[in-house]
Amino acid sequence: MQIIADNIQITNPVIARALGKMDPLPVQDLAKKCEAAGADIIDINPGPLTRDGEEKMTFLVETVQHVCGLRLSLDTSNPSAMAAGLKACREKPVINGFSLEPAKLEKILPLATEFDCDIIGFLLYPNGMVPGNAEKRLNLAVQLFEAFNEKCIEPQRLIIDPVLVPLMWEDGSRQAMELLTVIRMLPDLVGFPVRTIVGLSNLTSGKGPKEKKLFLEEVYLPMLASAGLDMVLMNIFNQNTLSVAKACESIIRQGIFSWEDVP
Amino acid sequence: MQIIADNIQITNPVIARALGKMDPLPVQDLAKKCEAAGADIIDINPGPLTRDGEEKMTFLVETVQHVCGLRLSLDTSNPSAMAAGLKACREKPVINGFSLEPAKLEKILPLATEFDCDIIGFLLYPNGMVPGNAEKRLNLAVQLFEAFNEKCIEPQRLIIDPVLVPLMWEDGSRQAMELLTVIRMLPDLVGFPVRTIVGLSNLTSGKGPKEKKLFLEEVYLPMLASAGLDMVLMNIFNQNTLSVAKACESIIRQGIFSWEDVP
Repeated sequence: MQIIADNIQITNPVIARALGKMDPLPVQDLAKKCEAAGADIIDINPGPLTRDGEEKMTFLVETVQHVCGLRLSLDTSNPSAMAAGLKACREKPVINGFSLEPAKLEKILPLATEFDCDIIGFLLYPNGMVPGNAEKRLNLAVQLFEAFNEKCIEPQRLIIDPVLVPLMWEDGSRQAMELLTVIRMLPDLVGFPVRTIVGLSNLTSGKGPKEKKLFLEEVYLPMLASAGLDMVLMNIFNQNTLSVAKACESIIRQGIFSWEDVP
Repeated sequence: MQIIADNIQITNPVIARALGKMDPLPVQDLAKKCEAAGADIIDINPGPLTRDGEEKMTFLVETVQHVCGLRLSLDTSNPSAMAAGLKACREKPVINGFSLEPAKLEKILPLATEFDCDIIGFLLYPNGMVPGNAEKRLNLAVQLFEAFNEKCIEPQRLIIDPVLVPLMWEDGSRQAMELLTVIRMLPDLVGFPVRTIVGLSNLTSGKGPKEKKLFLEEVYLPMLASAGLDMVLMNIFNQNTLSVAKACESIIRQGIFSWEDVP
């Protein structure tokens, strides 16, 4: 399972301030810490970037790349900012992401061809609504692949995010279980080992005690891993969750078991 | 998920000594602690009981029942000791257990009818060997149900133990994943929600650092739970594992989510 650090995001006040002042140091400090903590990929999420999007995304990509050799994933709904960021990437990045929402199909998806890179596709309705069960999600996955087909993009470029919803939603527990079914069934449905990604903190979004939130995420992660999840987007500084992710590998990876690999 | 405490077992020197001297106090002390820790069922495992089996199993059942109202599961390969223990039980116990091994089919399985109680069936070959993959295990499950059918026992009495093997076995990781498949597929295979049980400590049997063993068990348990496991046999004093089991319920149980239920 690859770990994508979600730490460089606009909701982090340090990042918001640094981006406002175009100050590279706080961003670089965080990027270095994410790499040291064991991230495989760093997500850069400056939000919708309504002003100076291209300049800001370019700044963030160049700033992070200056101190960190990791692959990046770029997370904005602003297509021109996304394009500028992709252009600035040295390593092939991941586009995070698109859905059946018309604006994203038209403006974001084509960037996967233009920049020859992987793209995350969310299992959401065109109006942004979350599907209510596994069957509806699998239907949406088929539609994402149809969109790929129409644009002649290799299906292997698609990484599916089945959209985890908070446990606190009325049907949150059921949805959490349906998500596992979706992750398990997708490869059979599409006929190849399509990759999947989940934003782990979504499980416990909303009000609640932080320790219990983290604990639930630690318990849900092995469920995701055993269902076949390939990538997890998470706060890389949650040390226990990271240890759980590594222990999952010890169990799931079909190699020779060694205590050295267990955190 | 029901928690079966595996603490009252002959490999525990306190229990071995108490059983040797027929001293009820250490057994009762442990039984009370198991109940207080949150066990749903207490497993009584005095080993094969080659001498004075009936007397010893009766002693253990009566001793535990004297201080503890929990349901018991009786774990010995000695059929007359098993029968004596079952006879002494006030609540309907669980017989733990039988397999396709001829001696067990002939001597242990009929006790489920005689005492009208649930019985754990191990997915093992008649010679006691462990099957190598999910398909072989599912085949054995079908054979267990056939044995039930021959003896006219209700299939709902069977609780299947798919037999977890140590990760350190050459194919241990693969087997751990195959086990999840077995647990997930069994209800469809047999056409009703057949219950399943796993002895969690088997995952890490053998040499290894205790902390890492417990951590792996904590990470594997949510995988089992999300596959549909109904009962887990475990050391009830592993507080973290117990918390994980409860957190699994918060995620899996299809009720209204509440932070109060999260440990």
